[in-house]
Amino acid sequence: MRDVAIIGIGMTKFGELWEKSFRELGIEAGLKAIADAKISGDLLDALYVGNMSAGKLIEQEHVASLIVDYSGYASRHLPAVRVEAASASGGVAFYEAYLAVASGLYDFVMVGGAEKMTDVGDAESNRELCATADNEWESIFGATYASLFAMMARRHMYEYGTTEEQMAQVAVKNHRFGSKNPLAHFRNTLTLDQVLNSSPVATPIKTLDCAPVSDGAAALVLCPWDHARKFTDTPVKIAGIGLATDTIALHSRRDMCTMDAVVRASSRAYHMAGVAPKQVNIAEIHDCYTIAEIIEIEDLRLVKKGEGGKATAEGVTDMGGRVVVNPSGGLKARGQPAGAVGIAQVVEIVEQLRGEAKERQVQGAEVGLTLNIGGTGATAFVSILKREN
Amino acid sequence: MRDVAIIGIGMTKFGELWEKSFRELGIEAGLKAIADAKISGDLLDALYVGNMSAGKLIEQEHVASLIVDYSGYASRHLPAVRVEAASASGGVAFYEAYLAVASGLYDFVMVGGAEKMTDVGDAESNRELCATADNEWESIFGATYASLFAMMARRHMYEYGTTEEQMAQVAVKNHRFGSKNPLAHFRNTLTLDQVLNSSPVATPIKTLDCAPVSDGAAALVLCPWDHARKFTDTPVKIAGIGLATDTIALHSRRDMCTMDAVVRASSRAYHMAGVAPKQVNIAEIHDCYTIAEIIEIEDLRLVKKGEGGKATAEGVTDMGGRVVVNPSGGLKARGQPAGAVGIAQVVEIVEQLRGEAKERQVQGAEVGLTLNIGGTGATAFVSILKREN
Repeated sequence: MRDVAIIGIGMTKFGELWEKSFRELGIEAGLKAIADAKISGDLLDALYVGNMSAGKLIEQEHVASLIVDYSGYASRHLPAVRVEAASASGGVAFYEAYLAVASGLYDFVMVGGAEKMTDVGDAESNRELCATADNEWESIFGATYASLFAMMARRHMYEYGTTEEQMAQVAVKNHRFGSKNPLAHFRNTLTLDQVLNSSPVATPIKTLDCAPVSDGAAALVLCPWDHARKFTDTPVKIAGIGLATDTIALHSRRDMCTMDAVVRASSRAYHMAGVAPKQVNIAEIHDCYTIAEIIEIEDLRLVKKGEGGKATAEGVTDMGGRVVVNPSGGLKARGQPAGAVGIAQVVEIVEQLRGEAKERQVQGAEVGLTLNIGGTGATAFVSILKREN
Repeated sequence: MRDVAIIGIGMTKFGELWEKSFRELGIEAGLKAIADAKISGDLLDALYVGNMSAGKLIEQEHVASLIVDYSGYASRHLPAVRVEAASASGGVAFYEAYLAVASGLYDFVMVGGAEKMTDVGDAESNRELCATADNEWESIFGATYASLFAMMARRHMYEYGTTEEQMAQVAVKNHRFGSKNPLAHFRNTLTLDQVLNSSPVATPIKTLDCAPVSDGAAALVLCPWDHARKFTDTPVKIAGIGLATDTIALHSRRDMCTMDAVVRASSRAYHMAGVAPKQVNIAEIHDCYTIAEIIEIEDLRLVKKGEGGKATAEGVTDMGGRVVVNPSGGLKARGQPAGAVGIAQVVEIVEQLRGEAKERQVQGAEVGLTLNIGGTGATAFVSILKREN
């Protein structure tokens, strides 16, 4: 397989975008990525789309074909594939798009992620989101994701002494980052007290421990590494990828404080990239709830098992820390349009590695990592990205 | 890229399977494919799943992870990807699975397709199915697939003199084939009069011109061609594949009597396989309505444009004809569990090329083709399969 580069990135604003439809968001992100890559769209050989639940949320399946059509590429009959893996849909679509270029089948591939989530009411939306958990053993009995992650948080507090303050620190850090991101859903900063005093959702998880439900889209243009410098002086290499699954239901797991799929997916990606966890400078990871970020930095081996809360409170993952986690604001502040998340994470890492992240810029970033999970960790996708000069 | 073989096939009965859940159907097909390949399931490197609308039909997204879990492979954290492209979901999953092996990323890959459609009421089901059309321009105004295909039929009758009797012949032929298929949804034969006198659905389409809504699953085991003979004396080679899209809405097409995506996908597959249309001995194609089979045999260039109806009436596509179309019974009689269709088509061609199709066996079949479409042809996937001795 050949090396693959990212030469174009594009992203819409994330938020409650009632004035924009799903297809409009998809096209906007795609056009931005094409413009950024400075290629003609006619060069594209194929499209991959990550989307979680457009069928349930906006009564529209078959969205890869839809986006080709509204991009104006139906007359070229562009091959197009939609991938779904709950909130890891974007990451898994990126994985398939990488494979399409690495294999030699295609040269120029666009991969996008999009989700339109705010056109349904809250209760209904919750029912939609929980269709990605185990319907026969979780959702049907009323389990919501907040309640499932609350159980993980409880156990992590019991096993390792993690505190609600440490979880709240994740929200404070990520909102501070988000306040510097013009495309973020939330640009307000938060204090520790605000997070700790926000309404309980599923104790110990409070409202401000939760990432929002958002609309938005993001897109990338991939091409073979050997062609990349014809289009950009700052290509970013996909150095490693890893995909893994676990039981879909949380209660079947070996350990509620560890997402084994994250451990395994990251092992595969580190191995492929020839990178050790300590070499990672920046990471965009899946902070759907604050406890998720704490567990994930442990399972990615960015910090020792059980020390995720402590490390967060000590600033290890903050600007100036050993590894800056979620400089975009993460799902918590940048927002969480499910299928777009995995692609938006890559967009941020590419901006950082190019040195174009402005106020959010992490100095000297050379190795970046993304982690996109589906459900409570039934799917995990990890990519390792590098700037090579 | 390296050549890829199919070494295992498995399929459940198709039909109204109220006693079996989605996950049970998926596992049953997968276990049959593993048994048929005579491999240990532990050899599998990854799983691909084609599924159209489990989120809407059974409130369950994230089905690739679900199937890994219920297969017992969650402890191995098997990479798993769900692909959706309306009723072409199975075909497009096959395409991605092929790519995963051809690229060298994986050696042993299972690809399955599954759909559980009969657990929802008819009206509701119709709403689910039509989410794969263009929601903003077709479904929301009440267009159903029967009405869309009826417009294609009307125009084909006007342009080429195709008759309702010729369409009915497709149903008669495919039910005769289905009567010999123990796994078919319908095993009754039909007379021309029965089809012509059945209740109108969307004139000229009558009840017996429509394929049913079914439950069912099918699965394949793929491996590199160079390893295949260690496992079977009758590996089948994936000689060519092609994927193409078109506008999602029918009214935007250049020509309502031609599915350009079928033309393009088949051109790509023929070219890759080095096979001319006239060399195809058997084809499993997407007869969701009888008119679809007539248009598709034209667009696949198995017969001349406009002569699909006449060729059907003359027996060109019947047993003993130049190219036997839908020897399994097709969607019309074998049944139509949407996401499983594209995989079941491959299962039939492999059985035929192996010479194991018993009463349905097409003598001397050496080159087989499958065509799986999504919507009214917004997605088309074609594969060309060969037995090589």
